[in-house]
Amino acid sequence: MKLNKNADTKILIVGLGLLGGSYARALKKKGYTVWAIEKKNASVEYALKEGIIDRGSTLVEEGFIKEADITVFALYPHIFLDWVREHGAKFPRGAFLTDVTGVKSCIVERVQELLPEGVEYIAAHPMAGKEVGGVENSDDSIFRSANYIVVPTSKNTHEGVELCRELGKELGFASISVLTPAKHDEMIAFLSQLTHCIAVSLMCAGDDTGLVDYTGDSFRDLTRIAKIQEDMWSELFLLNKQALLEQMDKFEKAFDMLRDAVAREDTEKMKEMMRLSTARRALFDKKEKKQ
Amino acid sequence: MKLNKNADTKILIVGLGLLGGSYARALKKKGYTVWAIEKKNASVEYALKEGIIDRGSTLVEEGFIKEADITVFALYPHIFLDWVREHGAKFPRGAFLTDVTGVKSCIVERVQELLPEGVEYIAAHPMAGKEVGGVENSDDSIFRSANYIVVPTSKNTHEGVELCRELGKELGFASISVLTPAKHDEMIAFLSQLTHCIAVSLMCAGDDTGLVDYTGDSFRDLTRIAKIQEDMWSELFLLNKQALLEQMDKFEKAFDMLRDAVAREDTEKMKEMMRLSTARRALFDKKEKKQ
Repeated sequence: MKLNKNADTKILIVGLGLLGGSYARALKKKGYTVWAIEKKNASVEYALKEGIIDRGSTLVEEGFIKEADITVFALYPHIFLDWVREHGAKFPRGAFLTDVTGVKSCIVERVQELLPEGVEYIAAHPMAGKEVGGVENSDDSIFRSANYIVVPTSKNTHEGVELCRELGKELGFASISVLTPAKHDEMIAFLSQLTHCIAVSLMCAGDDTGLVDYTGDSFRDLTRIAKIQEDMWSELFLLNKQALLEQMDKFEKAFDMLRDAVAREDTEKMKEMMRLSTARRALFDKKEKKQ
Repeated sequence: MKLNKNADTKILIVGLGLLGGSYARALKKKGYTVWAIEKKNASVEYALKEGIIDRGSTLVEEGFIKEADITVFALYPHIFLDWVREHGAKFPRGAFLTDVTGVKSCIVERVQELLPEGVEYIAAHPMAGKEVGGVENSDDSIFRSANYIVVPTSKNTHEGVELCRELGKELGFASISVLTPAKHDEMIAFLSQLTHCIAVSLMCAGDDTGLVDYTGDSFRDLTRIAKIQEDMWSELFLLNKQALLEQMDKFEKAFDMLRDAVAREDTEKMKEMMRLSTARRALFDKKEKKQ
């Protein structure tokens, strides 16, 4: 199957929150027919009024499920699993499913096992978001500087991987790559979950809100992500528990090393760590400029 | 003494690096006469050629010291102390001295003790900077969104504090405040030094530069300051050792609490920390918007 850029290709979004809504906006602009299943009536009405979906329902419409060429799940992980458990059997042979879930190992194979023969689910992680949720805040420009990761298992076909990549391109992502579920989860634990843990811990370390007058850019940058959606992130942390704990422990080991260097007044050790961090971080800048 | 906005007010900058050069640019634009003492000839020549100083010397010109209304020290802390030890006695009664040093308790009283009677040194900390140093990168626009902190001791006069505040205004800082040396150092340990320690530790935690392709904004924001000037920062860390270790320990306690909550799958504890961090961080946003 190829993505045909016209209204004959029907894309069903399940869950019209920030990401589901942003997918809908991007795909509608490209000319696809976009349908949505979303339990909140207000979200469906908003999306219809804004013209970011063609049809929407608060019910699990079998017509949508049977006719959609591609179905995108934009739900919390546990709701996604429950949904597939309840309705997965309704997908016809040849249906193609993907998602936006931020953790993979604990989800992907379970979903694949729940689906009928001939229905291909290929996991994807659009690494984009906003501090605020809801379809009202959806915005497909968040994809433009972001990464889209396709996360196949041995059950996926070459065609499935290519279709999923193509979807990422159509959504407008800056970069598209492919990772195994385990590598994906390790990467997410380090780059995303650990940084959120650090920001949260920093804000919880003491009541230093009196210092707000003196705050410079570095502190603001570091703690921007301390404003965190507690239901989603606590769920994601636990679903990726082992990988996250490993990364937290690695970070703490390095932090302790620096703390000891300060305590022992070991200038050479401090400088060694600073040189290493400077050199490593410079690689990220280069990449940033290239994009 | 009042700052008269004309060429009759002579301001001497000792140390023409990024901050010294940026002070010179800002003050020259405001119409003051700006002189500089800087050991690197190339920096003096650059500043003269660019017209950001009126006169400059690589020698400690007694004429400059005797005639300057205000002298600003923009040197590394230990060089500042050595300089004052060697040349401090040359300042005439009524001279007014200030600085840009990023740590205060370990410096301010020592400098005040070294200076002759009738010479007032009042410490200030312009909380502005760049990733790159040197007069060639100086840029007075870095002050526009930044904080300027006056750090008086019991030896300072009311007039001294006011003059120092006025200098901050003339330099174009967004916000000017007054803190004791101890409070200043506690604040710097938390808002600036701890965040740099975290960023450095994160980059040293493992060789994850292979992940550069997947890096999102939150990781980039958090590690931007991991590119760090090792000589200056290792000196600043040690000069503020006790305050920094206290803040590092407070952070680590909070980080361990979150780690334990993840390990024990204590969702309620995780959410409680996330709610607290979200609420505290929101205060910083409000302040950001007001500015």
